[in-house]
Amino acid sequence: MTRPSYGTLSLVGVGPGDPDLMTVKAVKRLAAAAVVAFPATSDGGTLALDIARPYVPTAAALLPVTIPMTPERGPAQAAYDAGAEAIAARLGAGEDVAYLCEGDPLFYGSAMYLLSRLGARFAIEVIPGVTSLTAAAAAISRPLAARNEVLKVLPAPLPDDVLRAELAQAPAVALIKVGRHFDRIRALLGETGHAASAIVVEHATTSRQRITRLAEFSADERPYFSTILAYRGTEAWGQQSA
Amino acid sequence: MTRPSYGTLSLVGVGPGDPDLMTVKAVKRLAAAAVVAFPATSDGGTLALDIARPYVPTAAALLPVTIPMTPERGPAQAAYDAGAEAIAARLGAGEDVAYLCEGDPLFYGSAMYLLSRLGARFAIEVIPGVTSLTAAAAAISRPLAARNEVLKVLPAPLPDDVLRAELAQAPAVALIKVGRHFDRIRALLGETGHAASAIVVEHATTSRQRITRLAEFSADERPYFSTILAYRGTEAWGQQSA
Repeated sequence: MTRPSYGTLSLVGVGPGDPDLMTVKAVKRLAAAAVVAFPATSDGGTLALDIARPYVPTAAALLPVTIPMTPERGPAQAAYDAGAEAIAARLGAGEDVAYLCEGDPLFYGSAMYLLSRLGARFAIEVIPGVTSLTAAAAAISRPLAARNEVLKVLPAPLPDDVLRAELAQAPAVALIKVGRHFDRIRALLGETGHAASAIVVEHATTSRQRITRLAEFSADERPYFSTILAYRGTEAWGQQSA
Repeated sequence: MTRPSYGTLSLVGVGPGDPDLMTVKAVKRLAAAAVVAFPATSDGGTLALDIARPYVPTAAALLPVTIPMTPERGPAQAAYDAGAEAIAARLGAGEDVAYLCEGDPLFYGSAMYLLSRLGARFAIEVIPGVTSLTAAAAAISRPLAARNEVLKVLPAPLPDDVLRAELAQAPAVALIKVGRHFDRIRALLGETGHAASAIVVEHATTSRQRITRLAEFSADERPYFSTILAYRGTEAWGQQSA
């Protein structure tokens, strides 16, 4: 599959927020990249670039892939079409491109949209990164799951009945993409016996990190860039009565 | 909780195998550690140390925590008791200790056994690492899950009925701790429609990495240090008919 005259696309996980949680491999790959591409939101947010900034060479060309923040999938998919073609032009000219991904590229990341568009035409390497999941666990010094327990990653936008059924059988869960679904999630975790152990971790590993027990989260707050970890198993760390 | 006269214990994720997948933070912490502790098996295996070796200072004292490989929990727990006390003696003497953990410390790792024994007595910091889960996904360039799908991490030693029930509802699964449970897991994945998409990733990110479709795995092999990723969703990467 390698076409020597083409550049290579690296999908680079930059970790959860602290630049020092980037891997040595990610740092080396960035140092050698002619082009550094990254997702950008239409209001100017560039979280992945912000994380990697200390390791982006000043000589590298910066290539934002701007994704409109709409609930519909069409505009975002069109934006990935355009972004993929801009990256393809660079690769076709023989330049190596590093595409920055918050956390890990293949753990609920947008890198899949580039893989699906460019994977058949170019050499692509994925560099895994530290996820927000394990960063949140590290922040609260609590295991995600014990021994042979099931661990479930549950995206908050799923319907109530799906979440309720999954939670009913789960000792250890991580709720992701919480945002505007916070009230629903809190109610569901209460129904299924997970609320007492649940901890909200916002902006893990950054200067804005905040750790709050779900029970103490005030009703008029909404946690963004957060993960909720809950544990309803038999290990002592699940008991939050202290 | 900080006691300035005591050393700090760092639980350091060293990633899945490639030393370059250690984080910058892990490398820095090792460079400053007076004592480097690590799990060892009774037959001399020291995987976490092998991974971190390029970054372990020659002046650091090495402190193995040797865990007997028995199915019973008693001997292993006694070994963690002894290991925790050996580490406590170093911390009590004011030395900083780094305990190396394969992958991430709190993703099914043994670090929890030190946390539970030492967490109330000493300052402990957890440095998250790249897990075998995302390393396996990177190795096969396939997302773990798409958009708002549930992702389940299923330890293979779980009983058949538990695994069958979880698999029945799961588009995206990762089977861990497969080892001697391989035949059972293959049969179960066949029952629940996951077998066609399932890929066995052994020794991810190391020179011994091997990627095999489950359907092509020969019956007399047994995959150790492996993760099986399966996807029964609607995205194109789940179709393995190519």
